[in-house]
Amino acid sequence: MAQRKTIWKAGTMLSPVPAVLVGSGDVNKGTANLLTIAWTGIVCSEPPMLSISVRPERHSYGLICDSGEFTVNVPSARLAAAVDSCGVLSGRDVDKFAQCHLTALKGTQVSAPVVAECPIAMECRVTQRLSLGSHDMFIAQILAVQVDSDIVDDKGRLDIDKAGLLAYAHGHYYEFGRCIGHFGFSVRRKPGPIVRK
Amino acid sequence: MAQRKTIWKAGTMLSPVPAVLVGSGDVNKGTANLLTIAWTGIVCSEPPMLSISVRPERHSYGLICDSGEFTVNVPSARLAAAVDSCGVLSGRDVDKFAQCHLTALKGTQVSAPVVAECPIAMECRVTQRLSLGSHDMFIAQILAVQVDSDIVDDKGRLDIDKAGLLAYAHGHYYEFGRCIGHFGFSVRRKPGPIVRK
Repeated sequence: MAQRKTIWKAGTMLSPVPAVLVGSGDVNKGTANLLTIAWTGIVCSEPPMLSISVRPERHSYGLICDSGEFTVNVPSARLAAAVDSCGVLSGRDVDKFAQCHLTALKGTQVSAPVVAECPIAMECRVTQRLSLGSHDMFIAQILAVQVDSDIVDDKGRLDIDKAGLLAYAHGHYYEFGRCIGHFGFSVRRKPGPIVRK
Repeated sequence: MAQRKTIWKAGTMLSPVPAVLVGSGDVNKGTANLLTIAWTGIVCSEPPMLSISVRPERHSYGLICDSGEFTVNVPSARLAAAVDSCGVLSGRDVDKFAQCHLTALKGTQVSAPVVAECPIAMECRVTQRLSLGSHDMFIAQILAVQVDSDIVDDKGRLDIDKAGLLAYAHGHYYEFGRCIGHFGFSVRRKPGPIVRK
């Protein structure tokens, strides 16, 4: 049912958003860093691309500008405390990998670190940077994906339920709840009038 | 514990992502349309900005290009079937508002429709369009937010738990589960060594 609306001033009220660990720096040079980012999203399917938005004052900002590379590591809910810590600590002051008991793996396509404990990681190369205000947006091509073997089923397909992912909404971290259906369920359940594939 | 990784080719493996109803066209001219989009994200805090990525062949694409405006309507989980339908149907063939029993309200800042049944809506004006490949990304400033009165508490704060939001991950729709904590919980629970606000 439609509800009465309250009009608010502009705000970043999109929910849920991912809360991901962005890896930057170089594993081989000891400069690997992590930053928790919720301002991220897929921006293109073919080629696969995503964006991350980073405040220029963050330590990771310079690392990403210098190398033109980063990783996006998708955490499970059991990593929520580490995800949170990597959002409030700074890589200028602490080694976040050590502090949060996380393991930096080498990427296959980039020098930025892949977080071993995250079930899914994307290796990315920056194609464009836009200064928007408080944040700069890095648009990047996804070059490779690393997936935990134990969330891949017998047929080689990703079983996302096994990943136990984390959602972030209006400043709160959530586990996933009940699965309602898969894409297209509404038209397959009761044959719809016109379906465009 | 770190798991063995499988290396996959590039893919859009970010999860969860929002599944939102993007309103376009003009309520006053009878051209209001809806499109379900998961390729969206916040890109800047100040000014508040978001992006949506749309395939040029979608009916909404032309409507957004023409007006330079759209709305992003954040649905609750009980709207999952409508959200799904608006992703597979085309506004060229059907009136999605009628088909999905949704109500188009006028925006306060834009002519594009606000979906009455969605607990949160953002009115947006396009600042930039980038052609990336399969999708064009519209970067937009958020001009105003409409929030259901019944998810605002006595102190005028948004109570996101009451919104009963919907998450989308790897082709599946989910309800929210348990709330793990709020931003900063990891350093407040056990005083951390260095905290950067």
